[in-house]
Amino acid sequence: MNLVSLGVKLALAWRLVPVLPALVGKMGGCISTFLETETLRSRVAQLERQLAAGGGGGAAAPGGGGSVSVVAAPAGGEVLFFPDPAMPCRNGKGCRRNNCTYAHGDTSLIRLLQWLGAAKQTLDVCVFSITCDELSEALLAAHNRGVRVRIISDNDQMATKGSDIERLKAAGMPVRWDKDAAHMHHKFMVLDSRFAMTGSFNWTRAGVLENQENVVILDAPGIAAKYAEKFESLWAAYA
Amino acid sequence: MNLVSLGVKLALAWRLVPVLPALVGKMGGCISTFLETETLRSRVAQLERQLAAGGGGGAAAPGGGGSVSVVAAPAGGEVLFFPDPAMPCRNGKGCRRNNCTYAHGDTSLIRLLQWLGAAKQTLDVCVFSITCDELSEALLAAHNRGVRVRIISDNDQMATKGSDIERLKAAGMPVRWDKDAAHMHHKFMVLDSRFAMTGSFNWTRAGVLENQENVVILDAPGIAAKYAEKFESLWAAYA
Repeated sequence: MNLVSLGVKLALAWRLVPVLPALVGKMGGCISTFLETETLRSRVAQLERQLAAGGGGGAAAPGGGGSVSVVAAPAGGEVLFFPDPAMPCRNGKGCRRNNCTYAHGDTSLIRLLQWLGAAKQTLDVCVFSITCDELSEALLAAHNRGVRVRIISDNDQMATKGSDIERLKAAGMPVRWDKDAAHMHHKFMVLDSRFAMTGSFNWTRAGVLENQENVVILDAPGIAAKYAEKFESLWAAYA
Repeated sequence: MNLVSLGVKLALAWRLVPVLPALVGKMGGCISTFLETETLRSRVAQLERQLAAGGGGGAAAPGGGGSVSVVAAPAGGEVLFFPDPAMPCRNGKGCRRNNCTYAHGDTSLIRLLQWLGAAKQTLDVCVFSITCDELSEALLAAHNRGVRVRIISDNDQMATKGSDIERLKAAGMPVRWDKDAAHMHHKFMVLDSRFAMTGSFNWTRAGVLENQENVVILDAPGIAAKYAEKFESLWAAYA
């Protein structure tokens, strides 16, 4: 692909920006404007980076999946199921590799990464185990764009091979963990004091690719407040 | 306690029946009438059994906790956190033991048992591990009162010591399980096609008494439908 055809794609993407809210309105009005806007911003930024890098997917946003999949959330909540068929392709939908074996959109992990990418102010994450690089990178990206990201994990799981906790700590992210033999077994998240996520899904490759798992994401400030309260009490207890 | 004082208690419980809806209305109107009614029915049945057994707690409903705690659910959902301070006392709030070390109401497990006790038609449960006798007994009680209870579990966990799956199967409850090395790691439930429950909580004693765990219970038929669809697809896959 040359710079001219990339320019055409970029122009098309820009033209979509004012049109999408109307399209979305027709889809039933249950999409969070907040999430759409962030998804669009992320897509535009990605296209700009691709253009600056001379085309191709080499400079796609880490872990972002790169797709403009503005997904309608069911009223009140969205449910994601795992396993996914493959890990997301880092080139997103713009991937031009022949027979690429990575996923190019619409997987549960890509949707979860979009949610993490939509955080504006705070991300409070309680997770038993975190070894999935794509998810860790989405936390790092949020941290780097000024979102206050806090992580609580389990002391035993942190000590296992592949845990990303040390890497997140080293990047300056505040991390705390339980101090006893019982498990800090939660896998919940509170996003911008508005969205609550919970389910069985640990943030691991096995969780993404092998196991039967679920995550429910609720646009429910009342429920988010209950999870936030629990987060604060654990955060204080594990200081 | 003699039969006279038990009779007084029973009469008091009966007198509460017509008054409770008004009380509940004042509490904000967000309680499921469905759940209240079942809780009350369960309490009346328990008192009747206690009376028939000559008083005391020996014949209390298994796993029911025995309390008339009509708990207000927050609009749209309720969140339970574990660990609990103790397992529920089988005598419920009527326990008259000195220094009883069991819980007598208002624990998360007691609330979860109340939800199971409220099922009228169907209970579809996907649970990685089930070793908690109180929860298994609540499933058996539902099965015995004509609720269609179906269980999906994980093959590896079923083979571990303390698993209640064989006992549930032996009682005639339909049970299926995954057939591969990956985990059937869900811990979700769909109740009467209306309520969906999910979270980190496995149905084990460690889940109740030791670990940090959460369960969200949603009065959300749209979300329940998504979990029900997943349940049916796993049920077919594991036939």
